Amino acid sequence: MPSVKAYGAESATSAIAPLTIERRDPKPHDVQIEILFCGICHSDLHTARNEWGNAVYPCVPGHEIVGRVTAVGDHVKKFKVGDLAGVGCLVDSCRECDNCKDGLEQYCAGGPTFSYGSPERDGSGITHGGYSKSIVSHEDFVLHISDKLPLAATAPLLCAGITTYSPLRHWKVGKGTRVGILGLGGLGHMGVKIAAAMGAEVTMLSHSASKEKDAAKLGAHKFVLTSDAEQVKAVTGYFDFILDTVSAEHDYNFYLALLRTSGVMVCVGVPPTPAVIPAFNVIFGRKSFAGSLIGGLPETQEMLDFCAEHNIVSDIELIRMDEINEAYERMLKGDVRYRFVIDMSTL
Amino acid sequence: MPSVKAYGAESATSAIAPLTIERRDPKPHDVQIEILFCGICHSDLHTARNEWGNAVYPCVPGHEIVGRVTAVGDHVKKFKVGDLAGVGCLVDSCRECDNCKDGLEQYCAGGPTFSYGSPERDGSGITHGGYSKSIVSHEDFVLHISDKLPLAATAPLLCAGITTYSPLRHWKVGKGTRVGILGLGGLGHMGVKIAAAMGAEVTMLSHSASKEKDAAKLGAHKFVLTSDAEQVKAVTGYFDFILDTVSAEHDYNFYLALLRTSGVMVCVGVPPTPAVIPAFNVIFGRKSFAGSLIGGLPETQEMLDFCAEHNIVSDIELIRMDEINEAYERMLKGDVRYRFVIDMSTL
Repeated sequence: MPSVKAYGAESATSAIAPLTIERRDPKPHDVQIEILFCGICHSDLHTARNEWGNAVYPCVPGHEIVGRVTAVGDHVKKFKVGDLAGVGCLVDSCRECDNCKDGLEQYCAGGPTFSYGSPERDGSGITHGGYSKSIVSHEDFVLHISDKLPLAATAPLLCAGITTYSPLRHWKVGKGTRVGILGLGGLGHMGVKIAAAMGAEVTMLSHSASKEKDAAKLGAHKFVLTSDAEQVKAVTGYFDFILDTVSAEHDYNFYLALLRTSGVMVCVGVPPTPAVIPAFNVIFGRKSFAGSLIGGLPETQEMLDFCAEHNIVSDIELIRMDEINEAYERMLKGDVRYRFVIDMSTL
Repeated sequence: MPSVKAYGAESATSAIAPLTIERRDPKPHDVQIEILFCGICHSDLHTARNEWGNAVYPCVPGHEIVGRVTAVGDHVKKFKVGDLAGVGCLVDSCRECDNCKDGLEQYCAGGPTFSYGSPERDGSGITHGGYSKSIVSHEDFVLHISDKLPLAATAPLLCAGITTYSPLRHWKVGKGTRVGILGLGGLGHMGVKIAAAMGAEVTMLSHSASKEKDAAKLGAHKFVLTSDAEQVKAVTGYFDFILDTVSAEHDYNFYLALLRTSGVMVCVGVPPTPAVIPAFNVIFGRKSFAGSLIGGLPETQEMLDFCAEHNIVSDIELIRMDEINEAYERMLKGDVRYRFVIDMSTL
């Protein structure tokens, strides 16, 4: 088993620091990828610091992985050495349940194998993510990456992209749909770009007037300052669909009121406290409060192809591997437009 | 304006007692109906006792109204004297907003005119409901009632029927759908009958083993005792759709866990405390927590026709008008299978 340079956390309170992990030699259906860029997702920080209570150490985060294929197993058909390739949040699943058969591996009945911190299904250890020089994954969980897009900025599509694309697709957002995007961060900025490319009318909902220009640059057609009662009144009962990317505590009812009849609000962010929703707030207007988790493999490939076709990538700030801890602190302050990506050549 | 005998509350603390109200003479588009039967809905009690804080007195409840047409205005085309007719929860709306144009008058942008306790749109007073000898309503808000069904048992379709039919239809319940019905009361028993007639597999979810036989009689295919951990485990991740008719406080998360991927739970009951839902509980499984309010006029007629075709009525206990206060007390205890209906000839 080759030893591979990586960065990770040894405990919930330790900084992200260099360490060495082992990667398996490619099995017949495996693809070995030299990691060129890895995006930084808020989940990386949550997990490294064990904020969701399920971390295993050492923890090597990273699930927005793009790179180049360096070896393939004998039975691999989808990839050859030299191809661009990506790995997102999932590296395996049971493949037998209804959800897996439907290409909804993220909802695998027994739980999918996540790219980091999950037990490997063959009992060989715990998965390690993209803060490392290479990764080995079954070809079914490896994505094709277009060479038409800037590679570093493509990395965040593997989580931020699919997390926003999947609910927009599932709830049939398109031409004629009035979409509100709540939160202008890593997820929100992808939501604006993708919803606009789908043909929807996109409104950025923000409590910060300073976001207006950026929202417009990203493709939002309208901006509503949520602290301005007049602006809020004008969009009360207005939206068909609200994508809520906020992971800070907030009042869901404020935004449910902005939905029109039969409207749907989908949360992809996880605040520390539960949503508190009086039944009347969904009964009047037949409204839905829903959630969505990343996306399955077929839909992730569909999203990557959609983004290549529509020339969509993430707005990123490229950092060196040894800037990771500083990047975490800046991410906590919202001080990034809009996604950090690690240049893995600096490891 | 003819004076009409009625029963109603003079204040939030007074019993339901005889009083006299005025009904307008039929205008060109009005239908005058002699009320033969009126169902008793939990909303009647909530409103009479001002538990929702919006009551106006005197309050004459009742919005499950069936009877016979006794006069029609010059321009009425849909009804003639002698026809059976029904009036449900709505007697008017703005008719101009998108929802009204779409036949979703219950979600009228400015608020519809409810059958009792609403200001008339022409400023002529407050609407009075079905605990009275007659009612006058615009023909657009009067329903055709089949003469093939027992009339008294048809009355509850006007609220309990449409309140359950509408979400089942909107979320496309039918053959192959696994439906859970939560709560076996006035609404729940209609939900079981209608969902079964739509071709769904219907499971009654109840914490009371004594409901099992009744559920089966109503057409439920399965019964799950929610206090039995083994039975609950067997239906975890099982249902496509749960219709939640419970208006007592309960934990929505318990039932969200019973939904399969992309499942929808729709509440039509209004508990005194809000739903408290951690975002993870809808994110994992792409689940929806939604609501639904009665139904619009076209859908209410569709429901009545569906029930006539499938021979569906409510299971009722017929009472005399002067038994109303006792009926309220018994309704509060759940001591009715499953809907009280007043024989208005006793007024």
